Amino acid sequence: MAKGITKRSEDYSRWYLDVIAAAKLADYAPVKGCMVIRPNGYAIWERMQAELDTMFKESGHVNAYFPLLIPESYLKKEAEHVEGFAPECAVVTQGGGKKLEERLVIRPTSETIIWSMYKDWIQSHRDLPILINQWANVVRWEMRTRLFLRTMEFLWQEGHTAHATAGEAQEETLRILEIYRIFAEDFMAMPVLTGVKSEREKFAGALQTYAIEAMMQDCKALQAGTSHNLGQNFAKAFDVKFQSEEGNLEHVWATSWGVSTRLIGGLIMSHSDDLGLVLPPKLAPLQVVVVPIWRGDDEKSSVLERLSAITADWKGKFRFRIDDRDNYRPGWKFNEWEKQGVPIRIEIGPRDLESGEAVLVRRDSGEKERIPHDRLLTEIPTVLQQIQKDLFKRAADFRDANTHTCDDYDDLKQRLDEDGGFYRVHWNGKRESEERLQNETKATIRVIQTEQSEKGSCILTGEPSERRVVVARAY
Amino acid sequence: MAKGITKRSEDYSRWYLDVIAAAKLADYAPVKGCMVIRPNGYAIWERMQAELDTMFKESGHVNAYFPLLIPESYLKKEAEHVEGFAPECAVVTQGGGKKLEERLVIRPTSETIIWSMYKDWIQSHRDLPILINQWANVVRWEMRTRLFLRTMEFLWQEGHTAHATAGEAQEETLRILEIYRIFAEDFMAMPVLTGVKSEREKFAGALQTYAIEAMMQDCKALQAGTSHNLGQNFAKAFDVKFQSEEGNLEHVWATSWGVSTRLIGGLIMSHSDDLGLVLPPKLAPLQVVVVPIWRGDDEKSSVLERLSAITADWKGKFRFRIDDRDNYRPGWKFNEWEKQGVPIRIEIGPRDLESGEAVLVRRDSGEKERIPHDRLLTEIPTVLQQIQKDLFKRAADFRDANTHTCDDYDDLKQRLDEDGGFYRVHWNGKRESEERLQNETKATIRVIQTEQSEKGSCILTGEPSERRVVVARAY
Repeated sequence: MAKGITKRSEDYSRWYLDVIAAAKLADYAPVKGCMVIRPNGYAIWERMQAELDTMFKESGHVNAYFPLLIPESYLKKEAEHVEGFAPECAVVTQGGGKKLEERLVIRPTSETIIWSMYKDWIQSHRDLPILINQWANVVRWEMRTRLFLRTMEFLWQEGHTAHATAGEAQEETLRILEIYRIFAEDFMAMPVLTGVKSEREKFAGALQTYAIEAMMQDCKALQAGTSHNLGQNFAKAFDVKFQSEEGNLEHVWATSWGVSTRLIGGLIMSHSDDLGLVLPPKLAPLQVVVVPIWRGDDEKSSVLERLSAITADWKGKFRFRIDDRDNYRPGWKFNEWEKQGVPIRIEIGPRDLESGEAVLVRRDSGEKERIPHDRLLTEIPTVLQQIQKDLFKRAADFRDANTHTCDDYDDLKQRLDEDGGFYRVHWNGKRESEERLQNETKATIRVIQTEQSEKGSCILTGEPSERRVVVARAY
Repeated sequence: MAKGITKRSEDYSRWYLDVIAAAKLADYAPVKGCMVIRPNGYAIWERMQAELDTMFKESGHVNAYFPLLIPESYLKKEAEHVEGFAPECAVVTQGGGKKLEERLVIRPTSETIIWSMYKDWIQSHRDLPILINQWANVVRWEMRTRLFLRTMEFLWQEGHTAHATAGEAQEETLRILEIYRIFAEDFMAMPVLTGVKSEREKFAGALQTYAIEAMMQDCKALQAGTSHNLGQNFAKAFDVKFQSEEGNLEHVWATSWGVSTRLIGGLIMSHSDDLGLVLPPKLAPLQVVVVPIWRGDDEKSSVLERLSAITADWKGKFRFRIDDRDNYRPGWKFNEWEKQGVPIRIEIGPRDLESGEAVLVRRDSGEKERIPHDRLLTEIPTVLQQIQKDLFKRAADFRDANTHTCDDYDDLKQRLDEDGGFYRVHWNGKRESEERLQNETKATIRVIQTEQSEKGSCILTGEPSERRVVVARAY
């Protein structure tokens, strides 16, 4: 167990915060609920941004930037939307030393400001589709906050697309859901369920919300990304019509979708252990750290000289660093890089020079292997790939082992208390049952996998059910 | 002259806004003074970010993210700082439906919030230097706004560094100034003067502010980036001390520095012409557009087929697009891409297939050249480089032709009114003279080139002067 990191088995919440502190990922800021993302945390976000941004661009999206401040009246134009977001808004009432005539809210999300602009940009079917994404900060007034998972201000990307037909909007909604799934599974090594949210859990103003949902190591669910089919709701609220190919004036169809710095919380809780952060190689800012070992200046210079030859052709192959700092001992460095989650550590000292080998240590498993110097360049990428795969498999096995089918309500309540996990249960599709479920179990319907059908009886009411839904306690 | 773009000679301000509208770079937003950066504008910003970010990282800086909201009391901890920024602040007084106990300002700049965190992060000389940059939005309540050049909200990067000695802080200040100069000149093709600002024009809270200063095509000056040596002012305001190698407790030394989306305004006004936007190749999101010409479907398919062979190995060599849209004619496309500032247009039609040549048109000069198909791949990068050079040279020649030495105050006033431009004049170094100059001429001291010395007499008072300073009207 690493110094200063509480064990997961002792106090999971405390462990999570200890991992963040030990890896210097983030700090609480002076304003309650706000967060400072420190360089180590931000470097992970930059990796995430780079990969997602590439996928968005390859699928035809472009980036833009819309204003932070939204007239309060805009929020009110879509009835469900204002009901959902108004209570969470930070409001600017004064600017330039004067009281403002119209109060401005700091964007909690940007549908309203963006659709007010789309009104000017869209006249004809030739202006469609619009496939815009923005990387931005948003503010939602949260009282119970937790670093990365729920903070008053967070960073995210929000896509806002406009289409000529309902079908295209639905395709886009699912295209993005799939991008999110691929990103979560292939890059974060975090297996996710995909599906639709219940009416009660959907985005305020959407026809339907799709989500990716992951299981954390404490068996709770984390909603990690959402993709909304907004139908014509915002086009109607902002009167955005286009002339179709047939010459008719029609309201535009819309989607919006987002993932946020919450993903970093999901990443931490998917893979890290009692020694600290564990990062999947694809998102690790630093993939390999080389720790040279020496006693005295003579050994130092011969080790470093040899290291420089060994690593000469590593550049561009993977992200590595040689930690040749004088003022820290090797043991301290091992511990430090473990806490920071670097996937591979290479140890190399005078004896290794003689044997022509180095020690490669995997952060995820602790496994050590001796590898000839001239094989490191080819071996390291292979091990990185293996770690990426193993992390995914371990997380998927864990999730599967903690996913249960359940048909008895008392049993469900007891097991949620005792074991946590995902429960596949029948539900009658009614809001009242969903509310009762949450009130009585603190669990919610996480996702409805509409492609699956299996008739049965609602676990709460015994009424007919079309399919099982996934129920869990969630972050 | 392009349809819808006012000539520079007719109305320069109108021309500027017309160029932005024609290239779809930005729009005014519903909140007065705020701006929407449209995809074409944002793509330029992304190119700028990528280049600057690389230079920052190569010089040892890392990125982080600090909160948007700052307790109002923090702003007040540095006396000059609050005086400078408080009048420009947007203030959040309500959150989550309740009146806040402490008012929060939206960051106009982040020194105060960052130094409140540095207090926790810095104890020893081993924690120094801290070399952090952040890409973020800031809000300053501006009444007279202009797209990109002065908006209420803008995007920028702000570097905030902490050092053990005054000397290191000064080195950092100048290192960044040099990065800004290189970026402006080598990437934006915008020649700049570098130097120090007068006491009156310096950043609120700095010991000294250094700036890069460019001349726009209307002969006005644009401050395009600033690098501040903050001395120990913020360390003292936030009580940030470190234990030195000798064991003494000392206040930390600081710098801060930033460039913003204002650079896009500078880019537009440096190179664009009466046909619209002109972009230097290094920052052009699209460097080459290929416009195929055909009549009828047979010609179309043979032209496109051939084009696909010609461009097969272009990928990764430069950023290009084949505009094969059916629903627009070639002439319309030429015009469209001209307005968007794409540096090179390649025209290719059935006759060019026969001759084995294509027409290459330079956006900056309008020059046309016939080039054999098999030479395009090598010729295009050469022409892109040439355009980059020529744009810089043209801007530098223009600036030099409009930079004058002047020793007579009446003459200065008249020439500022009639010709504009930069004037190298003697000044006694006193704030009263500087204020009088501004009140009487609307010009300000743009930059003091401290490495130059030339004794003389102040143009206003006749008092002794150590060196000439550069005076101009400015954005």
